[in-house]
Amino acid sequence: MSQLNRQVRLKARPADIPKAEHFEIVENPVPVLADGEILVRNQYLSVEPAMRGWVSAVANYSTPVGIGEVMRAFAAGEVVASRHQGFAEGDKVTGLFGWQDFAVVGAQAVTRKVAEADLPLSLALGVLGLNGVTAYFGLLAVGEPRPGDTVVVSTAAGSVGSAVGQIARLSGCRTVGIAGGAAKVAQCLEQFGFDAAIDYKATDDLDAAIAAACPDGVDVYFDNTAGRISDAVTKHLGLRARVVICGTASVSSWDSWPSGPRVERHLLVKRARIQGFLVFDYQARYEEAVKRLAQWVREGRLTYAEDILDGIDKAPGAIDGLYRGDNRGKRLIRLHG
Amino acid sequence: MSQLNRQVRLKARPADIPKAEHFEIVENPVPVLADGEILVRNQYLSVEPAMRGWVSAVANYSTPVGIGEVMRAFAAGEVVASRHQGFAEGDKVTGLFGWQDFAVVGAQAVTRKVAEADLPLSLALGVLGLNGVTAYFGLLAVGEPRPGDTVVVSTAAGSVGSAVGQIARLSGCRTVGIAGGAAKVAQCLEQFGFDAAIDYKATDDLDAAIAAACPDGVDVYFDNTAGRISDAVTKHLGLRARVVICGTASVSSWDSWPSGPRVERHLLVKRARIQGFLVFDYQARYEEAVKRLAQWVREGRLTYAEDILDGIDKAPGAIDGLYRGDNRGKRLIRLHG
Repeated sequence: MSQLNRQVRLKARPADIPKAEHFEIVENPVPVLADGEILVRNQYLSVEPAMRGWVSAVANYSTPVGIGEVMRAFAAGEVVASRHQGFAEGDKVTGLFGWQDFAVVGAQAVTRKVAEADLPLSLALGVLGLNGVTAYFGLLAVGEPRPGDTVVVSTAAGSVGSAVGQIARLSGCRTVGIAGGAAKVAQCLEQFGFDAAIDYKATDDLDAAIAAACPDGVDVYFDNTAGRISDAVTKHLGLRARVVICGTASVSSWDSWPSGPRVERHLLVKRARIQGFLVFDYQARYEEAVKRLAQWVREGRLTYAEDILDGIDKAPGAIDGLYRGDNRGKRLIRLHG
Repeated sequence: MSQLNRQVRLKARPADIPKAEHFEIVENPVPVLADGEILVRNQYLSVEPAMRGWVSAVANYSTPVGIGEVMRAFAAGEVVASRHQGFAEGDKVTGLFGWQDFAVVGAQAVTRKVAEADLPLSLALGVLGLNGVTAYFGLLAVGEPRPGDTVVVSTAAGSVGSAVGQIARLSGCRTVGIAGGAAKVAQCLEQFGFDAAIDYKATDDLDAAIAAACPDGVDVYFDNTAGRISDAVTKHLGLRARVVICGTASVSSWDSWPSGPRVERHLLVKRARIQGFLVFDYQARYEEAVKRLAQWVREGRLTYAEDILDGIDKAPGAIDGLYRGDNRGKRLIRLHG
């Protein structure tokens, strides 16, 4: 087997959404293992909206990927060589392995060993990975849903949003999804079991649509967008509502902060709160979430959608596609069968 | 003694800050007591920023005062006649007695009997009243200060802000006050013991002033203003910061929501939260707060300032004066010795 390692590297820093031209694919020999390292052969590479932030030079929660560096990415694969006593050949692992065929990493790069041998490995990057865990802790720990609450989710057909809606439903809540386009709205209602779904692209009066879908107001708003969708939902927050800021997909640049409606008075009158959330803060409780998510998947109570692109050459253009809404589920790059 | 009751009534609905011309003073006989009612002779009437909201027709946390009605206000006085078994002549009480000499009310209008006979009755409307209790619960229950935190307070020389700063200090925090004018800044530093104070009126670069005063970032921001002061503080929120929205004094109208910088991305990156707070939600725990506040006052660990105007004819113009920053402490109207 050829031991060439194809890598997707950041070639230029995008001003906004990273596109194919900001990356280049190079081939390198697979490096030799040092003591304490493992060699992972990636099977699936993850593509996610957060990548826009990871390559941005604007102050953020992580240092930006450097020019010439392999694109930071979660991946799932198999340990094919190990000089670390905690890992053996054949272990399935997921972690920050980058957009490449092979990763030589220390144990700190490994998110976890994948214990769910009965479920597809790709799930480790979606509903049983960062997306599912984000939905789990963002909704349950920050959103604090209570039975009977109305929970509104933006990007509701996405890999995080669809899990949020389903976990909210498992928590006894009424769920309202907001998504773009008739196909995604249908997916929200039919596949993900939202009680109502709003097509923001087809709605002139988002405000009225939310009012109609949430007659008792919004108790929890799980937001992946910021922008006009959030502004419309915010008006309908009920008493003691909780807003989870998980992503800001609809605002293209925060180089200087854009303007929007001031929320202070509304928060005061409603005694509501808006809180930022980052899943990495819950790393210590990762297994708790994955265990429950996996059980729900096995029981058919938590479903998911995948959007799999074949071949590493699809990676460079894959983020841009997400922001255009091309995908119909968790977007992954499959490197081999 | 003449049993005429002078009342300050709302004459016209202000578009913004209520001024003298929006009120009129009328004289009426003192009404006769029905069963279950008490007659309170007010000694002090409270004047507070929240009154702007109470007379506003814009949706709010309370129904607006009607045209022709006695201005809603907290007051402190003495029970001079009682047909309620819970109250006796001579009891000192505080409650929603309105801007008038005499109030005939049921027990539901009474906030509490004033138990602190060793302290001035006026404190029942300030540091031992709504202002102190607001500071106590807003800071401790919503702001959740921890020892070592940097706590920033706007309107820091005001009756709420000054108590917040002192309670934060009692909680082991470093305190930074923001106030308008050299006199208030001096009062923050000398009387209220803030570790640093910023004169926002004398500062061209509020952003730099906050950065200098908060080298480790802001952990708790207790806000009474909204507007540009908040915008500047928000930029310096640290990891997991808590913002308490207690008032919105610097925004004159919320008839349509004004614009300001979008905070979503910053909240996400900092995992920070912004939460609205209303003291009435803590009514059941009022005694807990007053007991501690009174003890701190007796021990000299909690100090206060009062701005007392003599005579009911001062009431109509007194709210406007607050918004101009005329006062140097809790503003009260004294009706008699």
